[in-house]
Amino acid sequence: MTQPIRVAINGASGRMGRALLALIREDRRFELVHAGVSAGSDHDGKPVFGELSTSIRYSHDWQLARNANVVIDFSGPDGLAAALTHCVEHGAALVTGTTGIDASLQKQLADAASHIAVLHAANFSLGVAVLTRLLREAAAALPDWDLEIVESHHSRKEDAPSGTALALGHAAADARGTTLEKDGVFAREGRPGARHRGAIGFAVVRGGDVVGEHEALLLGQGERVELSHRATDRSIFARGALEAAAWLAGHKPGAYSIDQMLQSRQAKTTA
Amino acid sequence: MTQPIRVAINGASGRMGRALLALIREDRRFELVHAGVSAGSDHDGKPVFGELSTSIRYSHDWQLARNANVVIDFSGPDGLAAALTHCVEHGAALVTGTTGIDASLQKQLADAASHIAVLHAANFSLGVAVLTRLLREAAAALPDWDLEIVESHHSRKEDAPSGTALALGHAAADARGTTLEKDGVFAREGRPGARHRGAIGFAVVRGGDVVGEHEALLLGQGERVELSHRATDRSIFARGALEAAAWLAGHKPGAYSIDQMLQSRQAKTTA
Amino acid sequence: MTQPIRVAINGASGRMGRALLALIREDRRFELVHAGVSAGSDHDGKPVFGELSTSIRYSHDWQLARNANVVIDFSGPDGLAAALTHCVEHGAALVTGTTGIDASLQKQLADAASHIAVLHAANFSLGVAVLTRLLREAAAALPDWDLEIVESHHSRKEDAPSGTALALGHAAADARGTTLEKDGVFAREGRPGARHRGAIGFAVVRGGDVVGEHEALLLGQGERVELSHRATDRSIFARGALEAAAWLAGHKPGAYSIDQMLQSRQAKTTA
Amino acid sequence: MTQPIRVAINGASGRMGRALLALIREDRRFELVHAGVSAGSDHDGKPVFGELSTSIRYSHDWQLARNANVVIDFSGPDGLAAALTHCVEHGAALVTGTTGIDASLQKQLADAASHIAVLHAANFSLGVAVLTRLLREAAAALPDWDLEIVESHHSRKEDAPSGTALALGHAAADARGTTLEKDGVFAREGRPGARHRGAIGFAVVRGGDVVGEHEALLLGQGERVELSHRATDRSIFARGALEAAAWLAGHKPGAYSIDQMLQSRQAKTTA
Repeated sequence: MTQPIRVAINGASGRMGRALLALIREDRRFELVHAGVSAGSDHDGKPVFGELSTSIRYSHDWQLARNANVVIDFSGPDGLAAALTHCVEHGAALVTGTTGIDASLQKQLADAASHIAVLHAANFSLGVAVLTRLLREAAAALPDWDLEIVESHHSRKEDAPSGTALALGHAAADARGTTLEKDGVFAREGRPGARHRGAIGFAVVRGGDVVGEHEALLLGQGERVELSHRATDRSIFARGALEAAAWLAGHKPGAYSIDQMLQSRQAKTTA
Repeated sequence: MTQPIRVAINGASGRMGRALLALIREDRRFELVHAGVSAGSDHDGKPVFGELSTSIRYSHDWQLARNANVVIDFSGPDGLAAALTHCVEHGAALVTGTTGIDASLQKQLADAASHIAVLHAANFSLGVAVLTRLLREAAAALPDWDLEIVESHHSRKEDAPSGTALALGHAAADARGTTLEKDGVFAREGRPGARHRGAIGFAVVRGGDVVGEHEALLLGQGERVELSHRATDRSIFARGALEAAAWLAGHKPGAYSIDQMLQSRQAKTTA
Repeated sequence: MTQPIRVAINGASGRMGRALLALIREDRRFELVHAGVSAGSDHDGKPVFGELSTSIRYSHDWQLARNANVVIDFSGPDGLAAALTHCVEHGAALVTGTTGIDASLQKQLADAASHIAVLHAANFSLGVAVLTRLLREAAAALPDWDLEIVESHHSRKEDAPSGTALALGHAAADARGTTLEKDGVFAREGRPGARHRGAIGFAVVRGGDVVGEHEALLLGQGERVELSHRATDRSIFARGALEAAAWLAGHKPGAYSIDQMLQSRQAKTTA
Repeated sequence: MTQPIRVAINGASGRMGRALLALIREDRRFELVHAGVSAGSDHDGKPVFGELSTSIRYSHDWQLARNANVVIDFSGPDGLAAALTHCVEHGAALVTGTTGIDASLQKQLADAASHIAVLHAANFSLGVAVLTRLLREAAAALPDWDLEIVESHHSRKEDAPSGTALALGHAAADARGTTLEKDGVFAREGRPGARHRGAIGFAVVRGGDVVGEHEALLLGQGERVELSHRATDRSIFARGALEAAAWLAGHKPGAYSIDQMLQSRQAKTTA
């Protein structure tokens, strides 16, 4: 690659942010141009890699990101809104993994995709992207088999089911022409009665330091299909987000997905 | 075996009852003396194996069970209460798999054990008995690992978690000096927050024709232990109940468990 | 369906044959016209469902199958060769699950497909067909992830790996532009050394009465995807073969697969 | 703990050695007194934690370990032999995870246990120790269920099955009054024929960066029990070895196991 991709990280002092900074430092495809934090953050103004090794400092000042080709955001709804404004103004692509987005911000994201390339994902693992695609197909190919999703995460996780489990459920519901609002079953306790036909059930396991496991079960009569993904190392999420940034930079405006990235890479391999 | 064991089945027209009748017919260790149904049952008075093959008829009349050595009951709380009265009166041993027993009936069962041999279990699979014992040990040996129980059953099952999952949870809680009342977590939905230390969590899967699967997870830092049982054929429950009846007949009064049966058989093998 | 499909079973006295006969008897879509056995079989000439219930007898005489629309064959290489000749001569479609076919018979099957509709599969479970398709995709989408196939069957199974495991391996190898001859690894014992890049490994479990389980593992760095199928009831194979026969009857000449059947049904659902 | 335990690491420059050094540095229960490497090692003479932070250097000179209370050895057969001689001479306890030990060295280890406390294990994970104990029990409690062991490791692992899988197999064989020499089945390929009664089968999976997974299957008729352990972080082995060293230091001469350590801790908890 003749010119490195100029990348800004938003939410740079968080766990994902720091993992991204560490990877970018070792990756010649990229040049770090900004490490964004919220105004008032303890990190604001501090050097990113210790005093001597770089001139980049954590900062709340988006002016510093002006020449970025792509922004990778793992900040939060407020941080994402700021990043979005900046990207549209300066024509930078945006990769974001922020969750808990309300309808208004969702609309801003959708509108922005007319002006810039946007890739929003709940999970940047390549394996989860493949699982999601396979689940869509299986859900459609076996339309009358019962569908259940089991997810496991570490003991500190506070929400349930996980965003990824919900995204899998939405994909499966969509492939069957229904929605989770209609057919999702999120808890069974006491005497919930027989399973309703077409239900998409969720089950949640919490414990230890489990990075993240998702299993989709398709249960027929006398047989079943089980599709699962296990993450054992958190670094896969940062690595996947970085791959997405490298792929997205330079794309024309639009809303993109990890699955599209996978398919375009697969097409290249086959061609 | 010189003399066959005289056995009465209570709840004989139900799914378990008929499975037991079919097995007993082929098993020379047993002689069927009574096939109990509730008064007013459609089956009352009908021959058990078709017109010609036997003189035994389904009946609500406990007089017919008078000379039974052992009663196997899979009826329901009312049926169990009647069987219990009969057994105590006539000195027959009682094997029962009836669930949904209230405190008063629980007490009657406990009292009966001063007079007759009683074996009450939520699940008559030998594998589940072994799993329960192993879970007790693992829960005690790894006291600070997070414990979760996942169970899967067919789509028609109406209660959750299963009686067997609860029994496993009680065993694990007991091994850790706590109770499910205190530490059981039966559903996680929305934002339940971080797992509390010492929690015993349950997760429920429903679908297809799954006979019954139970998995106990012990989740540590960087490692985990998974203990599971899968039933693929309903006949194991009837077969286990029959083994229990063969073993229990002739025992002195007391409350017995499948685990005690297994241990006594193991002792014989080793000796 | 106005006119029932006239079906002949070949290998009718075997386990699959009898399962098919039992299903056909209850299925109004079909009319049984022939129950083929090899000449010299003990069953030759005996009535299929007991004396009174039908005029159909087991027979080695293919003349009796003359008006069949479709032949379902689970006999063996010799039986299959005879069925093939009959089908081509009389224009009947052929569904076959016979395995252990040599190159010459393979060629006969391929040639026959110019004249009649032929569907040959190692496994008639719908779930296995879906698994195979998903595995192809995953193998292509994650080309540098390590691929392993684990299969479990009952203790009496004599060959290893199972025909289905091999078929899965062939599908995955094909999707990656290689072959099992080149990259298959069928046993690891002692000091086999590090895994070679691109290997497709097999692992075999035998025990109990396991009907058949196949798991394809795609193992990356820090994450993995697991795709599996579990059969818990042998009847799924007979049921799948019958579905295939109902679908295949009336198709124009050609070689068909279960996957094509699934896709055509899926298309119908979506349309 | 008033006085820290003086610990020497043997094989200190290897992967396990360095993991141990890193843990000991942060653990106030221990004082590092020696970091042993083989004579001629590149590390010989180099400082263990960089120039300034400690006076300890890697060294082949056992004189430096003279006052150690306990030696932790992950070196290799030659290194272990040297460590053993030193420990017996100076009365230090020995924890060793060295594998590939021949009969002669095995005897030296056994003899040493008359003079010093020795703990030798193929796997220092607490979870594996618990799994081993549970497997012994299950193998004895279900003597006629088929037993299989499946293990998975990363693609670079060169031997198969893993030492831990073999140790599990030995434990199960022992519990059933047999041996792996008699009943172990290590590979199934082609046409191995039906499973022999009492066989203990092994299946091997290799791929990705799997740290280590072991599953023992007990397969009955219509049901099965599955016992498994998954390691997701290599640090558990170093951590377990350190726990073993802390526990073993001060014990009287004898051969000890991880299981004894677990039971003694369990006893303390219960008491």
